[in-house]
Amino acid sequence: MSRAPRSAPDWDVVQWLNTDGPLDLRALHGRVVIAAAFQMLCPGCVEQTIPQLRRAHALFPAEEVAVVGLHTVFEHHEAMGPVALSAFVHEYKLAFPVGIDAPGQSGGGMPSTMQRYAMQGTPTLLLIDRAGRLRRQTFGHLPDLQLGAEVMSLMWEDASMAVSPNDGAALTPTAHGGERGCRV
Amino acid sequence: MSRAPRSAPDWDVVQWLNTDGPLDLRALHGRVVIAAAFQMLCPGCVEQTIPQLRRAHALFPAEEVAVVGLHTVFEHHEAMGPVALSAFVHEYKLAFPVGIDAPGQSGGGMPSTMQRYAMQGTPTLLLIDRAGRLRRQTFGHLPDLQLGAEVMSLMWEDASMAVSPNDGAALTPTAHGGERGCRV
Amino acid sequence: MSRAPRSAPDWDVVQWLNTDGPLDLRALHGRVVIAAAFQMLCPGCVEQTIPQLRRAHALFPAEEVAVVGLHTVFEHHEAMGPVALSAFVHEYKLAFPVGIDAPGQSGGGMPSTMQRYAMQGTPTLLLIDRAGRLRRQTFGHLPDLQLGAEVMSLMWEDASMAVSPNDGAALTPTAHGGERGCRV
Amino acid sequence: MSRAPRSAPDWDVVQWLNTDGPLDLRALHGRVVIAAAFQMLCPGCVEQTIPQLRRAHALFPAEEVAVVGLHTVFEHHEAMGPVALSAFVHEYKLAFPVGIDAPGQSGGGMPSTMQRYAMQGTPTLLLIDRAGRLRRQTFGHLPDLQLGAEVMSLMWEDASMAVSPNDGAALTPTAHGGERGCRV
Repeated sequence: MSRAPRSAPDWDVVQWLNTDGPLDLRALHGRVVIAAAFQMLCPGCVEQTIPQLRRAHALFPAEEVAVVGLHTVFEHHEAMGPVALSAFVHEYKLAFPVGIDAPGQSGGGMPSTMQRYAMQGTPTLLLIDRAGRLRRQTFGHLPDLQLGAEVMSLMWEDASMAVSPNDGAALTPTAHGGERGCRV
Repeated sequence: MSRAPRSAPDWDVVQWLNTDGPLDLRALHGRVVIAAAFQMLCPGCVEQTIPQLRRAHALFPAEEVAVVGLHTVFEHHEAMGPVALSAFVHEYKLAFPVGIDAPGQSGGGMPSTMQRYAMQGTPTLLLIDRAGRLRRQTFGHLPDLQLGAEVMSLMWEDASMAVSPNDGAALTPTAHGGERGCRV
Repeated sequence: MSRAPRSAPDWDVVQWLNTDGPLDLRALHGRVVIAAAFQMLCPGCVEQTIPQLRRAHALFPAEEVAVVGLHTVFEHHEAMGPVALSAFVHEYKLAFPVGIDAPGQSGGGMPSTMQRYAMQGTPTLLLIDRAGRLRRQTFGHLPDLQLGAEVMSLMWEDASMAVSPNDGAALTPTAHGGERGCRV
Repeated sequence: MSRAPRSAPDWDVVQWLNTDGPLDLRALHGRVVIAAAFQMLCPGCVEQTIPQLRRAHALFPAEEVAVVGLHTVFEHHEAMGPVALSAFVHEYKLAFPVGIDAPGQSGGGMPSTMQRYAMQGTPTLLLIDRAGRLRRQTFGHLPDLQLGAEVMSLMWEDASMAVSPNDGAALTPTAHGGERGCRV
């Protein structure tokens, strides 16, 4: 594929956990970003995405790679508010920043960031390069081997390059098993 | 051990999910009961106990074995109320009855049933025989092989017998790994 | 099902490992027997059956339940001879008896015991009651919860009874996933 | 660490499976090499290393990354000869090249390549860069996330560079769990 990557849409976050202040994409410029949209009551998120974010946060150096959770609640809103999320973050011992997606303007319960990215459900994995471009958006789970390879590829890229000569597209496409996810 | 089993203390439940009405121990008399005290935000409960209850509910005939969840919240009360639990039960597709433990009279946040059983934390597995006697109370996880054996042993017992000739005590004791649980 | 269980065919074993002497079904009379036909180079056997036999051997009291492996080689005979099997038993730290199935009389490479039981492949799980009757023969994997329940049911039976009042047939049938096995 | 990487010692292989001809390091020059020394009867190798090699072989493009197994038998030689290995490769459906390490000159049963690399046991993971330099040698298991990242880092390096500016050393060191391996 030769489609040029677009800039990642800004996140619309009303509250951050595990940060000193707001964490927008501008602040992350220069770093590779692994972000995952999840819901604390989505089984596939809890079983696969949360442990994977924890492993990525432990492995990659923080000054090179930012690991971020986005709590994108599109169902059971009353059960997954900020107080509930704080308890979840505490019990699951999450140490990386987690942002709470803002309520959507239009109806249907879809939160704002989720709408901007046109996500299909949770979990959705986002990889954003040092220049703030969205390089992967995947509904479902990406195997660790592939995630590790793609993140390192983005770490190597010169932020000024439009597309890397040797980017993730060189990897054999994988079936991503969105079947464990929660579809919108 | 020759200690005679005591009657299982009554549950003090304020609300039931997945039932037509209240489900007290008297109503379960004549059946073997697998009950697990859990919290919806306790990682060990979600990873091990919930799937095990689901497997037990699918395997054993309902007229012989009752599988029951007891939501015994002793921390993060505001995050694990009835509405949140209902969302959890829906998302995790639980089909067995789940009772919400009543608030405790004394301080400390320990709910009532948890106090009656003097539980150490969640998950806590309870096995109750056809005559309503508490035959096992274990903080942590019991391996499937052992749970299957112990339940079947209770299925075979004559409800009139005080102690079976061949009860679970004949099995080699297992380390139960409470380390994944949430201690009070 | 009301079909009366038949006597388990004798095993035709040319060599035993982990025993002081031959171990035929007569010698096991009075005990429940968990036997699994396996091949040391069958992936499904190594991943699922061997660990399950190890767990069963650790859990059930030896004077009540015998755990036995039967090495039923029907392919790659030159790679799975007695010397290779001994190395396997050593490396996988198997502590229960393992018998080597005798070469079959007729052609095709099917060993003798496998033919007597008309097995479809490996792994095949056998459950034999205290009276020496074959109560289960399953090609593939049986979940731990169900195995534990069925073994305990056989432990409870009076050896004189033809069929138990409450036998394993009361359990909800499970799909046994022979897909990981090696079919003849 | 600033220690300059040394050239990977030549492999001393007596027979190759899954190749058209001998596959020495010179032939792999220009490609990143993931090689794993294993024994077909080493439980840790079978459970972790073989599935990981299979995943790596499926993910990375063959013209960029070579995945190679080295059968380095240092115990139970009579059980793990070429015929047995061929059966193993067939049953486990391995599609990548596997080389059989040559017998060692000196006593003790250590094969030749294993001696050249001074390996401590199996599994041992080797990462070799496009210029033929040994960049990682680890006894035990490396998590997928880290392996994916390190391989991609080597894919990006200019073969002419002595050491990358951003190499695997930037990753947080991981405990590698050699406990499942077979120590020499």
